[in-house]
Amino acid sequence: MIDINQHKTETKALRQQWIEFIYHLQDSICKALEEIDGKTKFNEDEWARVEGKGGGGLTKVIQHGNVFEKGGVNTSVVYGKVSRKMREVLHIPLSSGETTWFAAGISSVIHPLNPFVPTIHFNYRMFELYNVDGKLCDRWFGGGTDLTPYYLFEEDAVHFHQTYKHVCDGFDEKLYPLFKHNCDDYFVNSHRNNERRGIGGIFYDHKKHDENHNTDFWFRLAQTCGKAFIDAYIPIIQKRKDTVYNEQNKYWQEIRRGRYVEFNLIHDKGTLFGLKTNGRTESILMSLPPTVRFEYNYQPQPGSEEDKLQQVCLQPRDWV
Amino acid sequence: MIDINQHKTETKALRQQWIEFIYHLQDSICKALEEIDGKTKFNEDEWARVEGKGGGGLTKVIQHGNVFEKGGVNTSVVYGKVSRKMREVLHIPLSSGETTWFAAGISSVIHPLNPFVPTIHFNYRMFELYNVDGKLCDRWFGGGTDLTPYYLFEEDAVHFHQTYKHVCDGFDEKLYPLFKHNCDDYFVNSHRNNERRGIGGIFYDHKKHDENHNTDFWFRLAQTCGKAFIDAYIPIIQKRKDTVYNEQNKYWQEIRRGRYVEFNLIHDKGTLFGLKTNGRTESILMSLPPTVRFEYNYQPQPGSEEDKLQQVCLQPRDWV
Repeated sequence: MIDINQHKTETKALRQQWIEFIYHLQDSICKALEEIDGKTKFNEDEWARVEGKGGGGLTKVIQHGNVFEKGGVNTSVVYGKVSRKMREVLHIPLSSGETTWFAAGISSVIHPLNPFVPTIHFNYRMFELYNVDGKLCDRWFGGGTDLTPYYLFEEDAVHFHQTYKHVCDGFDEKLYPLFKHNCDDYFVNSHRNNERRGIGGIFYDHKKHDENHNTDFWFRLAQTCGKAFIDAYIPIIQKRKDTVYNEQNKYWQEIRRGRYVEFNLIHDKGTLFGLKTNGRTESILMSLPPTVRFEYNYQPQPGSEEDKLQQVCLQPRDWV
Repeated sequence: MIDINQHKTETKALRQQWIEFIYHLQDSICKALEEIDGKTKFNEDEWARVEGKGGGGLTKVIQHGNVFEKGGVNTSVVYGKVSRKMREVLHIPLSSGETTWFAAGISSVIHPLNPFVPTIHFNYRMFELYNVDGKLCDRWFGGGTDLTPYYLFEEDAVHFHQTYKHVCDGFDEKLYPLFKHNCDDYFVNSHRNNERRGIGGIFYDHKKHDENHNTDFWFRLAQTCGKAFIDAYIPIIQKRKDTVYNEQNKYWQEIRRGRYVEFNLIHDKGTLFGLKTNGRTESILMSLPPTVRFEYNYQPQPGSEEDKLQQVCLQPRDWV
């Protein structure tokens, strides 16, 4: 068995702060979404890892709401021995002294009912490696938030990107352009002419203490980006949730949700790593949309609102 | 450019017979399905590979029918230079003289509208490798047919398996048990407690001329298995297509179709290889079901008809 409490006090304190942050964020985001939904509440599933592996998580899921057809906000706090598989994936040399790892994060995907309200995804995580004496060897942060609309409202895209640019600029003006570019590069259906999953947002990984930014910097950045969900997304929901839609709008949403499924199951590294290393399947696949269509060779009418969305996924734009 | 016609006469003749077989099978299966559907016909898309790569295919798709909600029967006849990627996947040593490859096959997935009619999939293919002088270096056959019901009718399962056992036994009584086992081992959602995609069928690969069976044997086996589609599937459609179903039955079908999507996009080697090596995306993803549901932690009522199906997917049975 692994005793995660053997680790040194200062790293324990930081870990504890991070865990408190993700639980608090989960709680406040779920409350904000419940308030706007007005009908349905999140259900909670607390789970523990099996087979003597350490930690577990709290999966919170909302389904069949007024506003949210399906959505989840998950936290997980997990740790274990560094396996050969993990060494491969994380490029840790076999000779190095890392023996245990620790990871804690929050992730969320929200699929609204109304096709004029975009889907949102975010994930913020901290990863640590320790040696046999419980000494911290390495620590990094990763995260991001991205938007997947079914219809393009340019003002919403600008608002969303502007929110994260503003947050990032408060830390370092170099960050937003870099993270925006990362995001456009990551959420790509390469098997569909490099069509993006949506209109992007920010995405970063392996951020650690270096000559420019210390651990505290990356910690606070993740906190601030995580909390910005409310400012970035809630006004868009408010503005679009009562838009009248027809069957054709819903059809198109379900076709686009098909692309979401394709990205998550074919390309998303986190999803595939989780599924292939005995992660909790139901929590990982919470991200999949509630109803989906796959139609052979579906093409929107050139010049239509549907086509406009597709074009912006094929050619990402700078929004701010 | 590759000149596929440089190859020797006897191999050209066999290749030509195989191509005629798959086109003829495609035609006769589509006709049989159109007849039973009574409303909708297959649409044809003839396509050619791009970027100077050789060959192409004929994709035939039926949608929004009386009986078939979505289905496709595809043939492809393709060839090219042996790439590094292909050497890796096919385990061809770098030093070996194979310079060009040739592949021709037929594949099909049929998704009926009525949840009491099962989905079926089959695929039969021939693969060849040639050296720089156009001499055949290697040739093998692969294929299989498997059934994915949403409700379990034991008599249908027995009929389906009995049909392929009968076909295989006509060639060699050792084959069916082996191919049935292969099939159960292949169509597995390992991320869902090794739940199978359906109730299986037969599956085989890399069958080539050896001390027991010559090329002609494997060619004729593929032909006979391919043609057995009619006997194996059509009687089941006839028996079930007019069964009255309700919303709950359709809901369950769409939940199970979600598992079909998961298998095809996460685990199916053919799908992933095709998508990651610039195959024709629309033809490959023709296999995905028309409407699908992903619900968090959906569990059928213990002892229900839905649960009975799920249990048989978790624990494959011997049907004959």
